[in-house]
Amino acid sequence: MTENDAMNRALALALRGPRHGVNPQVGCVLLSSEGEVLAEGWHRGAGTAHAEVAALSALADPELARGATAVVTLEPCNHLGRTGPCSVALIEAGVARVVYAVADPGERSSGGAERMRDAGLEVEQGLGAESVEEAIRPWLTAVRQHRPFVTVKWASSLDGRAAAADGTSQWITGPAARADVHRRRADADAVAVGTGTVLADDPALTARDGDDLLPHQPAPVVIGRRPVPSSARVHAHPEALRRFATHDLAAVLDELYAGEVRSVFVEGGPTLASAFLAAGLADEVLVYLAPTLLGGPRTALTDLGVGTIGEQLTLAVTDVTRLGDDIRIVARPDDSSSTKE
Amino acid sequence: MTENDAMNRALALALRGPRHGVNPQVGCVLLSSEGEVLAEGWHRGAGTAHAEVAALSALADPELARGATAVVTLEPCNHLGRTGPCSVALIEAGVARVVYAVADPGERSSGGAERMRDAGLEVEQGLGAESVEEAIRPWLTAVRQHRPFVTVKWASSLDGRAAAADGTSQWITGPAARADVHRRRADADAVAVGTGTVLADDPALTARDGDDLLPHQPAPVVIGRRPVPSSARVHAHPEALRRFATHDLAAVLDELYAGEVRSVFVEGGPTLASAFLAAGLADEVLVYLAPTLLGGPRTALTDLGVGTIGEQLTLAVTDVTRLGDDIRIVARPDDSSSTKE
Repeated sequence: MTENDAMNRALALALRGPRHGVNPQVGCVLLSSEGEVLAEGWHRGAGTAHAEVAALSALADPELARGATAVVTLEPCNHLGRTGPCSVALIEAGVARVVYAVADPGERSSGGAERMRDAGLEVEQGLGAESVEEAIRPWLTAVRQHRPFVTVKWASSLDGRAAAADGTSQWITGPAARADVHRRRADADAVAVGTGTVLADDPALTARDGDDLLPHQPAPVVIGRRPVPSSARVHAHPEALRRFATHDLAAVLDELYAGEVRSVFVEGGPTLASAFLAAGLADEVLVYLAPTLLGGPRTALTDLGVGTIGEQLTLAVTDVTRLGDDIRIVARPDDSSSTKE
Repeated sequence: MTENDAMNRALALALRGPRHGVNPQVGCVLLSSEGEVLAEGWHRGAGTAHAEVAALSALADPELARGATAVVTLEPCNHLGRTGPCSVALIEAGVARVVYAVADPGERSSGGAERMRDAGLEVEQGLGAESVEEAIRPWLTAVRQHRPFVTVKWASSLDGRAAAADGTSQWITGPAARADVHRRRADADAVAVGTGTVLADDPALTARDGDDLLPHQPAPVVIGRRPVPSSARVHAHPEALRRFATHDLAAVLDELYAGEVRSVFVEGGPTLASAFLAAGLADEVLVYLAPTLLGGPRTALTDLGVGTIGEQLTLAVTDVTRLGDDIRIVARPDDSSSTKE
């Protein structure tokens, strides 16, 4: 197997790990000097072995690591954390060469490459970097920005309304779109709504498959100054409610990040979604468009502080998929300077 | 060639003809009794030969028609019109069998099948009917409903806004989407806007390829009670302005139909588009979504008279296509009873 193929394999392994949580998805393939696959590993979540250690542990004989190449999606870490530093584990195992895709952006965990070079290993960065960047974008974005990755999600009619004039909205989107939302909730560390949504819709904020809870539940977050009724369903969520009686979203994100939240799924309503967008705190926009028209005042987004067209919030669409009768659009802020005429 | 293949071929020929105009797109293939293609024809627009006559004229020898099968997308017509009745032309040519996809819904033109049966021809209806229905849906819908086929088109941000708070909107969508709009304008008999759009945007309402006019220009239609300034660009349109100082859209469509308009492309603004939709007078919805967010009050649709979710205007999406950075969604009123939970 070439190192390139090994990197693709390592990425596929990485994605077997959980997407939520404080640690990234990482995969590792150990190759012999002849390019034979000696062992594989991936990280299964906080408190379990890192990918490199998992791969080393999977060797039929520890001696096989001597002179081997480790192909790994992320720079081997350099801190103790809950496990030993992976850079040291690779050095001690006798690995001769390490190829990784993306540098570890963690303040405490980075420096593994330098440590391994100092120990005499051949170390290369960048193979497969683009694919890995894209695959673990939420975690990388969070650690680089020191705040959780924020997905702003809404469902609307084709004309951008979240509800009919009287506030009724169940169900605008169909079962396939709703199931997709639940799967994505389960990939997030937290799911956030405003107090207005709690009072209007009383959502459970659980991630479900039909009536069953999915294995991972995002922490419920409620933002806003109005009181949350003691009878609100959010209190019955398996994870404890995180309550922020503020409109300072940056402060909310700071506190969530300090509490090990790396991804927040913002589910509404219009006021909270618009506030995250207007503040430039959305890393991903996820829109479910239902094949229906509603008209009227209940827009899915309210005001974004866009006074004139030059101030529009330009996005780059990364995916358009039909889900049942609905259309899912995934987009992100367009950081490139505008190329439109 | 089988009759089925011949029908597919006839449909492909039909679509070579113009989509606009008072006559439908029709194609015809003449087959020998051995299934050999003897001749082909299609209708090139009002005042020219119908498809069947065009095919008969293309025969190397008129005698070849004796005992032949005519495969044609639409029931051969039974009226004189600007050309002779095709049913009579087929009878007189000696054709033995006629296979057509869709019955002619025209009041004066239908009856061709019966006339040919009376003359002793074998006549069959229905082969390829679904494809032909779909391909010439605008014309069929117009003639069946005795009013022009109405396409309601708008361009908006992903959150359903047609402009920023101050009214600026150029350009929300990119060049590929705008070129698509011009091609579709050129396929229509008329393009309609409200007086508000004339006063705000002063559109030319021409169908262009860059700066060049496309070969067919839709007639410009302005609807609404406010006066159209004498300086308005719409007066410079190569086709005469059709002016309706009324809010009675059904009456407007009646008059346009009487004036040989079979398709109207409604281009806005929000008030006129919403009025057509609320009145149930839209046969097709064409939405260009730009990857941008605007928020604020300038929604692409205003009020549709939907008070509660049960009154939503349910659509069936027939196409989702990415055009440059934009997304084009084509939908139509969903006549089937709702199958959503």
